[in-house]
Amino acid sequence: MGRVYNFSAGPAVLPEEVLQEAAAEMMDYKGSGMSVMEMSHRSKWFDDIIKEAEKDLRDLMNIPDNYKVLFLQGGASQQFSAIPMNLMKNGVADFIVTGQWAKKAYEEAGKYGKAVKIASSEDKTFSYIPDCSDLPIDDDADYVYICENNTIYGTKFKTLPNTKGKTLVADVSSCFLSEPHDVEKYGIIYGGVQKNIGPAGVVISIIREDLITDDVLPGTPTMLKFKTQADKDSLYNTPPCYGIYICGKVFKWLKKQGGLAAMKELNEKKAKILYDFLDESKMFKGTVVKEDRSLMNAPFVTGDKDLDAKFVKEATAAGFVNLKGHRSVGGMRASIYNAMPMEGVEKLVAFMRRFEEENL
Amino acid sequence: MGRVYNFSAGPAVLPEEVLQEAAAEMMDYKGSGMSVMEMSHRSKWFDDIIKEAEKDLRDLMNIPDNYKVLFLQGGASQQFSAIPMNLMKNGVADFIVTGQWAKKAYEEAGKYGKAVKIASSEDKTFSYIPDCSDLPIDDDADYVYICENNTIYGTKFKTLPNTKGKTLVADVSSCFLSEPHDVEKYGIIYGGVQKNIGPAGVVISIIREDLITDDVLPGTPTMLKFKTQADKDSLYNTPPCYGIYICGKVFKWLKKQGGLAAMKELNEKKAKILYDFLDESKMFKGTVVKEDRSLMNAPFVTGDKDLDAKFVKEATAAGFVNLKGHRSVGGMRASIYNAMPMEGVEKLVAFMRRFEEENL
Repeated sequence: MGRVYNFSAGPAVLPEEVLQEAAAEMMDYKGSGMSVMEMSHRSKWFDDIIKEAEKDLRDLMNIPDNYKVLFLQGGASQQFSAIPMNLMKNGVADFIVTGQWAKKAYEEAGKYGKAVKIASSEDKTFSYIPDCSDLPIDDDADYVYICENNTIYGTKFKTLPNTKGKTLVADVSSCFLSEPHDVEKYGIIYGGVQKNIGPAGVVISIIREDLITDDVLPGTPTMLKFKTQADKDSLYNTPPCYGIYICGKVFKWLKKQGGLAAMKELNEKKAKILYDFLDESKMFKGTVVKEDRSLMNAPFVTGDKDLDAKFVKEATAAGFVNLKGHRSVGGMRASIYNAMPMEGVEKLVAFMRRFEEENL
Repeated sequence: MGRVYNFSAGPAVLPEEVLQEAAAEMMDYKGSGMSVMEMSHRSKWFDDIIKEAEKDLRDLMNIPDNYKVLFLQGGASQQFSAIPMNLMKNGVADFIVTGQWAKKAYEEAGKYGKAVKIASSEDKTFSYIPDCSDLPIDDDADYVYICENNTIYGTKFKTLPNTKGKTLVADVSSCFLSEPHDVEKYGIIYGGVQKNIGPAGVVISIIREDLITDDVLPGTPTMLKFKTQADKDSLYNTPPCYGIYICGKVFKWLKKQGGLAAMKELNEKKAKILYDFLDESKMFKGTVVKEDRSLMNAPFVTGDKDLDAKFVKEATAAGFVNLKGHRSVGGMRASIYNAMPMEGVEKLVAFMRRFEEENL
């Protein structure tokens, strides 16, 4: 059928030219006589790949020198343990719970110390971001934790919380590289790459150096200790080499698009097309408070389950796939990450318009 | 230069037809209109991929129904923590230390309880496998741990240790699927896939069901608890989908080769060609006690560092790459995994013979 428009929340659409390059290099990467999958992680070839990936990411995000870039495994879920194990020196962390992933991080941290829910939007099915300008931050909080963009619910922090001087830790899995981040405002900014950057199985964590120490909780697995990975430049053991290689290609693609400021502009335009339609539609409604809308994940409903199902079915047949909402929310969700072209959003909206005319 | 003969110890050579298929499917997997990298791990497409991979692995290894197959992340190194966290109910584990990886597993387990070194071959640079017929197994040992094939040193357990009824746990990273294993003899048989099965970033762990419980050590990360992954069929969070897809293709390739008995026969033939030459050569010497030689990793030396370096350099130029020995041993090492064709070993030996004639 040829390529579809893939609105999956993750793993998700990747730039076509990245995939084409990867396919072309599969049997012989740049004259090495082998695939990147077959290369020793200690080889000069792979050393160049991982170093260049890090350099390009540093350029894109303007990462200060006192931050380490780590390529890790296990998804954000594994960081839900690793972060408290590495950071809970006082045994206290504050959580702003704006969705399932922040909630899971909060619950996991409770195993390792006192995890405090200082704000939540669970009262309204996580459809908004709470006011975070003056929260009761604990005096001895080791850090304040957020999930910056909520993939399932389609909300995003438009301003970072006032942490009153405490270290901010943010999971940015679903908004990673979708716009510029001011890295200096974070102690840790991290995410799984499988939404906006590359194939599942790689986590990128950007960590301020003073947070990388030997002083971790007793029983912290060696592999989960940040210092283990930082001291070896992510090569303590064999990293997920092929995934890192693909991420590196996406970084180069992003540079070619003009970097993160250009991506932000494009992502805002793409999201506006969809949200403007949702605001004017008599059938489709966005589920999120307007000012907290994500640029990446747009959930919407018709209010009628059967009609939702009909829409998803017909959209799929027309080549707009993975529009079914998350099982915990229902309805629909269009994830429009960096690699979703403008044309994909335009055509989706045209399709929705036609569907509305035919079914209202 | 075209494809080389890649003797890397891992990541390592993969079957050419697997790579060719992966390249051909990169833009559009079987009419899905997307790459496997872009697929939701909850999609029907990926569900078929992971279920079929598991089924093919169960066929190949003849895995009994009371064993779970888990696709995990973090390499064997992460299992060095996960295994004691899940299994150390009595707080005791016995280790047979036959190389760096077993030693690391032993040291890591010591964080979580009493790890006992019941045998070791470190006295002779791990060049042999100790007699394990009557070891002082602890009465309350939760398990006995081995690394079955030692990638760095080139040794392999030809008979499994007598565990006196205790659970055997084996890291088989570098001999996974190189020959049949009698899974019932193990409580856990596991390994990173990046040597003999697929790209780095996937660990396969085959675990007897009674070892998968909620009764884990306090502070065990949710992601490291076997039950988390077992209850969700390795889909608790996003797994390393693309890696699992490649592993699945390798399983199909192995079935086509005739399965593990046929691979064993082939691997024995390949290894014999190399070892026979080492035994007759006046220049090259194997470093391992003959009866403990690995079928997969063959270290050898000339006894002269400069000559070693000259050999590696000339071999590389001739298209025999990654023959340099591990940094902790020196000399040379030829890793001849499943995907190394017979022809590769024959040509290497012909090259060694010529080098010997020219340099003796």
